[in-house]
Amino acid sequence: MKRIAIDMDEVIANTSISLLKLFNQLYDQDVTEDELKSKNLIQVRPHFRKEIESFYTSETFFRGLDVISDSQTVILELQEQYEIFIATAAMEVPASFKAKYEWLKEHFPSIPDSHIVFCGDKSIIHADYLIDDNVNQLQLFRGKGILYSAPHNRFATGFTRVNNWLDVRALFMNKAVEVM
Amino acid sequence: MKRIAIDMDEVIANTSISLLKLFNQLYDQDVTEDELKSKNLIQVRPHFRKEIESFYTSETFFRGLDVISDSQTVILELQEQYEIFIATAAMEVPASFKAKYEWLKEHFPSIPDSHIVFCGDKSIIHADYLIDDNVNQLQLFRGKGILYSAPHNRFATGFTRVNNWLDVRALFMNKAVEVM
Repeated sequence: MKRIAIDMDEVIANTSISLLKLFNQLYDQDVTEDELKSKNLIQVRPHFRKEIESFYTSETFFRGLDVISDSQTVILELQEQYEIFIATAAMEVPASFKAKYEWLKEHFPSIPDSHIVFCGDKSIIHADYLIDDNVNQLQLFRGKGILYSAPHNRFATGFTRVNNWLDVRALFMNKAVEVM
Repeated sequence: MKRIAIDMDEVIANTSISLLKLFNQLYDQDVTEDELKSKNLIQVRPHFRKEIESFYTSETFFRGLDVISDSQTVILELQEQYEIFIATAAMEVPASFKAKYEWLKEHFPSIPDSHIVFCGDKSIIHADYLIDDNVNQLQLFRGKGILYSAPHNRFATGFTRVNNWLDVRALFMNKAVEVM
């Protein structure tokens, strides 16, 4: 059974949009999703840098992230034919470990503890595929990298690109197509 | 540069002896290290099962573990010739993530965040060598497994065995010997 490793932030957890919503609400702002297509939130509201950074050191922030559309159903389908690991970088925010773990247990209960990996450098991941929005991590990875589209990687080339989880399903579940 | 992944509990962190000391002190007991050579603490004091198990769900317990002799100096030496990752199973005790991370930052400051991995199943680790006391994990691992001696693995065979960190140094730093 081939093994797929799946990143968490911006691939199954809608981190940047959750941050946007919380920021708008707490600081009475009206930043739109469109504005985040070419800049990140700190670039859009630089005078709120400190406040925005504080979300990333908050345990509760990572516990409340929205789930990315269709990731739950497609991962359940993939598990019938592939071994699925979640591989997420959590080292920059030690407070996020427990919150990320609990978030995964709530939203992806079919992923056992043994298939959750917290790591900083995805060259350590032994899998056939890695679905990730981070080009640097895909370059470090030793298997076949699949780029999950995000505003910050829109100009990146060199990887098979998926725009959403229906693309992931089509890529991996279409038996007529060899992914590699 | 070849890559060595190193387990944490019973390899660089003296988990069972730290547990023993704390248990003796807190519950006024006199269990000896010798008694732990063929049994674990719960087997030696079964009527304290609940109390002993509670240590493993305690964040402070993992923060205060003793460091295994010579592991710090030998790992520093190994880093001159190998890429070193710490790969530890923390998923059973989500409360231990942050404590284990902080423990590593204190006692092994030469290991960058990017080279710390929390995982449950070491088949996911992409490295040339894994030093671990857990035979199951060594069997899952895809590279060359090195068994770090512990009472619970004393009868295990089939892996290169090291009894302490001076053995690890001799194995990896002796240029006349090919480890593989």
